[in-house]
Amino acid sequence: MALDPKPRSTPSPVILVVEPYGGSIRHQNPNLPMVFWDDAALTRGDGIFETILIRDGKACNLQRHSERFKASAALLGLPEPILEGWHKATEMAIEEWYAHPSAGDASCTWTLSRGRASTGLASGWLTVTAVSAEKLAQRENGVSVMTSSRGYSVDTDLPGIAKATRGEVSKVSRTPAPWLTVGAKTLAYAANMAALRYATANGFDDVIFTEDDRVLEGATSTVVSFKGDKIRTPAPGGDILPGTTQAALFDYATEHGWRCKEKDLTMDHLFGADSVWLVSSVRIAARVTRLDGYKLPKPDNEKQIRDLITKALG
Amino acid sequence: MALDPKPRSTPSPVILVVEPYGGSIRHQNPNLPMVFWDDAALTRGDGIFETILIRDGKACNLQRHSERFKASAALLGLPEPILEGWHKATEMAIEEWYAHPSAGDASCTWTLSRGRASTGLASGWLTVTAVSAEKLAQRENGVSVMTSSRGYSVDTDLPGIAKATRGEVSKVSRTPAPWLTVGAKTLAYAANMAALRYATANGFDDVIFTEDDRVLEGATSTVVSFKGDKIRTPAPGGDILPGTTQAALFDYATEHGWRCKEKDLTMDHLFGADSVWLVSSVRIAARVTRLDGYKLPKPDNEKQIRDLITKALG
Repeated sequence: MALDPKPRSTPSPVILVVEPYGGSIRHQNPNLPMVFWDDAALTRGDGIFETILIRDGKACNLQRHSERFKASAALLGLPEPILEGWHKATEMAIEEWYAHPSAGDASCTWTLSRGRASTGLASGWLTVTAVSAEKLAQRENGVSVMTSSRGYSVDTDLPGIAKATRGEVSKVSRTPAPWLTVGAKTLAYAANMAALRYATANGFDDVIFTEDDRVLEGATSTVVSFKGDKIRTPAPGGDILPGTTQAALFDYATEHGWRCKEKDLTMDHLFGADSVWLVSSVRIAARVTRLDGYKLPKPDNEKQIRDLITKALG
Repeated sequence: MALDPKPRSTPSPVILVVEPYGGSIRHQNPNLPMVFWDDAALTRGDGIFETILIRDGKACNLQRHSERFKASAALLGLPEPILEGWHKATEMAIEEWYAHPSAGDASCTWTLSRGRASTGLASGWLTVTAVSAEKLAQRENGVSVMTSSRGYSVDTDLPGIAKATRGEVSKVSRTPAPWLTVGAKTLAYAANMAALRYATANGFDDVIFTEDDRVLEGATSTVVSFKGDKIRTPAPGGDILPGTTQAALFDYATEHGWRCKEKDLTMDHLFGADSVWLVSSVRIAARVTRLDGYKLPKPDNEKQIRDLITKALG
């Protein structure tokens, strides 16, 4: 009697507690509680994160993620991340992840929290989980997107905000002003999640935030348009979080003869482009197939663009 | 030889896990981790909270806190809180708190999170901790306050926002729109905390957010002014979270002959008032002694006002 092949299971999440001051890196059982009742990440959303794609045994676009993590920490007045520790933890987690026979692409999240009120010490951890089937499907099939006002406008004319929100923290006053958290990738993502739930409840897959006619960003992604050999994205900074995937794409594409520019984009620009994409670390690139219900044409070079963005991640 | 009295220790925090669907209420050891790595409160600040003053063995202003908790949950699309369960847990925690011989005023926080990504079930817990010495001192001595732009403006002319952000959730569309989280008391308080850190680093105790000349709210409190028998507060709703302490004060003071009004306030109004206060659940009322460095005069009726606000909490 032939034996059935063993069913492919999904690897368990890999969770590592990373001491932010350079201490130990240790395993956390995903089935046991990890965080204390008075951790600021929990009580105030007071922490930062980065989500990094793990592919073919390596962390993609690691340098840009590391820089933004450091910039976010500085903007929130968190202790400067010891990147060697985070990189070492990431390597450990990757090794463990790929020990599972059916391990594929994974999503690695670094979190740095202001930590427990009762100790005054920052806390940190790293998780590696499988890329969801939904994200994998959206890479292939694209997404239907609605646009929405964000519900608030960031005062982008405040002093120093342009530089600070691009992560060039050394160029602004050393004391981060209250409003500067808008440039950091903080845990305060409830509004973005609410926007995504609203979109899903109304038959869409994703959201692009707009301010009047100005295109801002996706709920968890950067908007990029292609037309001929031109690639455009809304200028990051101010009310638009600088995207690590977009930055990698622009550097790589420029080297390969594309003409890339960061500039204000209008809705008309999106409707007039050859193709519109939402780029982000783990989903990588999802083509916008419908925008507010209007079908966007499928471009001839869809595969070429997908390859370009994937290669840009190194 | 006379025995020295036993030194007064502080009671340990009381932590109860409250199952949001009406299941068990159980003790959590504050020295052990409580929350799982994939809880949305932790990963996205995706949850709501209320902070309630515990005084003389009872929870103050419980009705208004309960209503706002319910309204916040509805705005975020969280399961409707089973208030009987939260009230029962609060009673249990109060009883345990006062079992300690040196228990005084305490702060009780209810948290309801969207919960674990891996289970899809909401999670909830309650904590009771001592009121900090700093808050107790600020009740007595007042606070030196700086004003600051919030860094963003809420689009208050969005449809339904006025009603929704006042908690009258039944009057707006049943599906919460993305932007409606601005009216809920969510865990996304990192920006408020950053503003407070900035204030402290610059020699102030607290922050009042303003938009140009318009007074909005404190970082964790409501602004109230007194002049003669008139009490004023910036009209809540839109970009100003409705305050439970302010609401209790206005109801009680109106019954006792004060003339209370919610209306837009300017900075000039604050400088022209007899006294300006920051009111909130646990600190109750802290008089603003300095505003942007200018000394505000001490009113003749400071004690009377403090008594009024305290009595309003029932």
